[in-house]
Amino acid sequence: MPQNSKGTRRERELVTLLDERGFAVMRAPASGSSTERELPDVLFGNGRSFYACEAKSSSGRPIYIDEEEIDALTFFAEKFGAIPIIGVRFDYDTNWYYFHPSEVYRTDDGNYRVKQETAVEEGASTDVLWDGGVWVE
Amino acid sequence: MPQNSKGTRRERELVTLLDERGFAVMRAPASGSSTERELPDVLFGNGRSFYACEAKSSSGRPIYIDEEEIDALTFFAEKFGAIPIIGVRFDYDTNWYYFHPSEVYRTDDGNYRVKQETAVEEGASTDVLWDGGVWVE
Repeated sequence: MPQNSKGTRRERELVTLLDERGFAVMRAPASGSSTERELPDVLFGNGRSFYACEAKSSSGRPIYIDEEEIDALTFFAEKFGAIPIIGVRFDYDTNWYYFHPSEVYRTDDGNYRVKQETAVEEGASTDVLWDGGVWVE
Repeated sequence: MPQNSKGTRRERELVTLLDERGFAVMRAPASGSSTERELPDVLFGNGRSFYACEAKSSSGRPIYIDEEEIDALTFFAEKFGAIPIIGVRFDYDTNWYYFHPSEVYRTDDGNYRVKQETAVEEGASTDVLWDGGVWVE
């Protein structure tokens, strides 16, 4: 998620939401050293399931994510032992929706795209994550 | 670990060490919001074992850690599903030594103390962590 003020605010909102649901949550430090550049935005667990998450927000337009960013997410998640997920949040909808990268539409150039209507219809909820998701690690 | 320059340098050193050993590592952001205040310094995993770690360094004198800090570490670790550990590093010894809080000497007022000779004699190595530690989660 870009380090603009709105992106940061949404990311903190996600941390608070996950914390309130009972997850133990760690947010990545602001990008700095080379080891930190490839970190997921948020890492969280509840004693049974572990997730590495890229958090993305949008005013309502489709969200595009670079292939490289998802490759880095998946690499970290597999190394750690977590499920890689993309969390999306659109303005005027206070819910977060989650996708495993493998579920997300790929554009012709390999990047990832999530439309708001797809998120609402097909995204997993925070409750689903709590229960272990619907994905195999 | 206090946010002085040496403490921060040692913490980054630990992140680099764990990263080089093959762990996926996330360092906590600098203390800020209330949710972040109680985070462990470092969270890392290798697909089999997960650790929440407080990193402490010293010139050579015994390391003292407040009971509250270890309580917070243990709370986070249990919630997340990680093993809580204290990582210690003394000047003139480039190794890190790790302890489960239950192994560490408690002072009369309940705080934790690790002496250098105890660390060298009884601390677990990074390799031991890689192999799953010697502790039950």
